[in-house]
Amino acid sequence: MEKKCIGVDIGGTTVKIGIFQVDGTLLEKWEVPTRKEEQGRFILPDVAASILEKLKKMGIEPDQVAGAGLGVPGPVMADGYVEVCVNLGWKDMNPKAELSGLLNGIPVFIGNDANVAALGEMWQGGGKGYHDIVMVTLGTGVGGGVIIDEKIIAGRHGLGGEIGHIHVRDEETEHCNCGGMGCLEQVASATGIVREAKRTMEAKTDPSAMRVFGQRITAKDVLDCAKDGDVMALEVMDTVGRYLGLVLAQVALTVDPQAFVIGGGVSKAGQFIIDVIDKYYKKYSVISDNKGILTLAKLGNDAGIYGAARLVLG
Amino acid sequence: MEKKCIGVDIGGTTVKIGIFQVDGTLLEKWEVPTRKEEQGRFILPDVAASILEKLKKMGIEPDQVAGAGLGVPGPVMADGYVEVCVNLGWKDMNPKAELSGLLNGIPVFIGNDANVAALGEMWQGGGKGYHDIVMVTLGTGVGGGVIIDEKIIAGRHGLGGEIGHIHVRDEETEHCNCGGMGCLEQVASATGIVREAKRTMEAKTDPSAMRVFGQRITAKDVLDCAKDGDVMALEVMDTVGRYLGLVLAQVALTVDPQAFVIGGGVSKAGQFIIDVIDKYYKKYSVISDNKGILTLAKLGNDAGIYGAARLVLG
Repeated sequence: MEKKCIGVDIGGTTVKIGIFQVDGTLLEKWEVPTRKEEQGRFILPDVAASILEKLKKMGIEPDQVAGAGLGVPGPVMADGYVEVCVNLGWKDMNPKAELSGLLNGIPVFIGNDANVAALGEMWQGGGKGYHDIVMVTLGTGVGGGVIIDEKIIAGRHGLGGEIGHIHVRDEETEHCNCGGMGCLEQVASATGIVREAKRTMEAKTDPSAMRVFGQRITAKDVLDCAKDGDVMALEVMDTVGRYLGLVLAQVALTVDPQAFVIGGGVSKAGQFIIDVIDKYYKKYSVISDNKGILTLAKLGNDAGIYGAARLVLG
Repeated sequence: MEKKCIGVDIGGTTVKIGIFQVDGTLLEKWEVPTRKEEQGRFILPDVAASILEKLKKMGIEPDQVAGAGLGVPGPVMADGYVEVCVNLGWKDMNPKAELSGLLNGIPVFIGNDANVAALGEMWQGGGKGYHDIVMVTLGTGVGGGVIIDEKIIAGRHGLGGEIGHIHVRDEETEHCNCGGMGCLEQVASATGIVREAKRTMEAKTDPSAMRVFGQRITAKDVLDCAKDGDVMALEVMDTVGRYLGLVLAQVALTVDPQAFVIGGGVSKAGQFIIDVIDKYYKKYSVISDNKGILTLAKLGNDAGIYGAARLVLG
């Protein structure tokens, strides 16, 4: 009987868990709440108990499980050590070793959640069929994951794929969460798009369909207005696309992947957002026409469990 | 008896060849001229004949040779195929397979010369002891090589490590050799430093020690003046350092190496050039103090033969 692998994606509110066949077929997925009290000490026992119960219910014996993968929202050392994970309250622990113990010795593999999601998209999502991809997640922030030869480039200090904090804008005057100023995330995240739209509306007196939303405008509103041809919204998205295209070109000239997979809430704008970015991606990488393509992510919030399960396959 | 490996670095004027022990000890190095006539068809036979003669003279039997590595000045596909190599006149050939045939079946490994030099610096140069480095060569152009887990990231289209063509300067009005505008190479190569110095001298009337060199000023002159505290030369090098630091920060936030190894003619300025870059590298990567260090290359023009020999070890 074909072996199974388990993917666990620990978020700040819920833990997503999936059981997969090694060919990438998702057999079952479910969620458990993330209990953050007492430095998050219940999280892994909750996860383990839930997995063991599910395996039993599905009639899967422990020796049919190749392993479990774990995506955590913070930096992870190569040996699985987590110095601190603010979102979960974790400090100075090794969730890889701990979960393996709780699962009666099933091998556990671990990675940072953004990197793990990138691996998931490579395996069964927008990057399926490729071996080298860079994932760009445009959500509340801008996340990234670099996959080369089907392996995560986590970096020696956990900074691999942190493309949201690449400096792009010298004239920025506000600080980013990272402490920097002018990070990609400050303009290209959903939050960044909203801020850029508000700034543009304030700086100009021209009419715009965006004005009806006032201070409660969302990134989706900006994108919808731009798609409808609103000049000011198009200008905002052009700025966003310029900085994203610039960073993607930089990344192409560093690791040269086969594809950039664009995900996160903002990517729901579909081909429109791809085109907005692609214009500048091409402009800033004229050295060659032969380079990685831009494509959309496909797995949505499931990318994490897919990627975590894929970690098991090495 | 310990096995040997051979490193071959094909340049536009000479081919450098070295015979190494697998522990990285250089036993012998020499050069042969690069005969570019007739589409460079004599280059590999010349190299092979020279190697076989040297092995004989040194009393090394073919079965004591683990293999030969080859660095070529152009893009190389993973299977060794070279579509075109302008500097050598090569077109549509597989130098890896060809050289192996000429060397009576000794296994041959191949890579782009900038990437191979980076591997050499990792093995026995400024990056010795590290597994993940990015090499930055500041010469006539700006070259780069990304090494992760002791392997070259060549990229799927040969663009891996092409950091000299990362766009950094919007206000640039001249074209780069690559067809782009505002590439790092246009300001941070030896040529770029000279151009920046000339532009600054033209734009200002202030006195400067650089003025004595007039139009024949070299990058070394600019660096020497800056080291001596000349205000205008320091301003030029500050601009150079800003763009280099920006790109290194971008690369750190993409692949997060243990060290950046700075080589090429400009790096002869030593710790001064490191400090100039480091100031901005830190400024543009405030997200973490824990990141790759900046250090100087050590192998000079021998980096290519070291790296080529290292290719053999996998």
